[in-house]
Amino acid sequence: MTISMYQASVPTFIRMLDNLAAILEKAAAHAEAKKIDPSVLLASRLYPDMFPLTKQVQVACDFAKGTVARLAGQEPPKYDDNETTIEALKARIAKTVDYVQGFQAAQFAGAEERDVQMKIRDQTLTFKGLSYLAHMALPNFFFHATTAYDILRHNGVEIGKRHFMGNP
Amino acid sequence: MTISMYQASVPTFIRMLDNLAAILEKAAAHAEAKKIDPSVLLASRLYPDMFPLTKQVQVACDFAKGTVARLAGQEPPKYDDNETTIEALKARIAKTVDYVQGFQAAQFAGAEERDVQMKIRDQTLTFKGLSYLAHMALPNFFFHATTAYDILRHNGVEIGKRHFMGNP
Repeated sequence: MTISMYQASVPTFIRMLDNLAAILEKAAAHAEAKKIDPSVLLASRLYPDMFPLTKQVQVACDFAKGTVARLAGQEPPKYDDNETTIEALKARIAKTVDYVQGFQAAQFAGAEERDVQMKIRDQTLTFKGLSYLAHMALPNFFFHATTAYDILRHNGVEIGKRHFMGNP
Repeated sequence: MTISMYQASVPTFIRMLDNLAAILEKAAAHAEAKKIDPSVLLASRLYPDMFPLTKQVQVACDFAKGTVARLAGQEPPKYDDNETTIEALKARIAKTVDYVQGFQAAQFAGAEERDVQMKIRDQTLTFKGLSYLAHMALPNFFFHATTAYDILRHNGVEIGKRHFMGNP
């Protein structure tokens, strides 16, 4: 009567990344309709020392791919942070979804007890897999996905909670 | 080699709610230092048809208590949405943490397969427990917690990701 670490992570990442791609699609349509340069949206931030939209999406992708890799005991792949268009960000999301979907549930066997290491700036943090997922990976992933949404909403893109949630 | 639905939900809610209370504490200190009426922060939104800070915190609390109640097969308690101060919001969070902490892991036995119903406006949505947690409860909870943080950041409160994450 339990769930696997795979079930607690992979479907959540895939659904949310798909929703994020759909939100970016709406942003592209909004920019075109309103004759807004899409790069203005990509560079938008909620505060000067917060990440802009582009970086929010990149980091959300990185937490998705990094989490599944680490829980499966693999080294996460590095993606260059070189996206300058909404299309390119959507492609990065698609590449991330492909990567996440490539994992099998069996690769997550014992992941809840696996030692997971994560470098943040100069620090190396070590977690057990479950603690990593519950207190680092999911909060960060949702943080960046939500802030991407919030930036677009703040800029008047006509999206709503249903786009963030997808069709649950 | 699996985890329980309790492990996949209760500790995450408690950690994040505690972090949210600490963020509100920082907001209160900021308002006092800058001679800002705290009610201005509480009424702030990222866009005119988004929820203000107060409602973001209320809804985050409601997803935490509603999720654990539903996963345990109970009816969630109703809290009045009557908070008008930062102190009152912190008290609501504390009440929610107490409620969530009151559950025992055994009450979540079989929760992944339990039919969970949730009313949203006129609709009643029905999920299996796992799908409810992964695709409805956690995304919504993190959405509102993150947007609360984003509203305060956007208003210049000096908080950072470390306050959102707590001390993982």
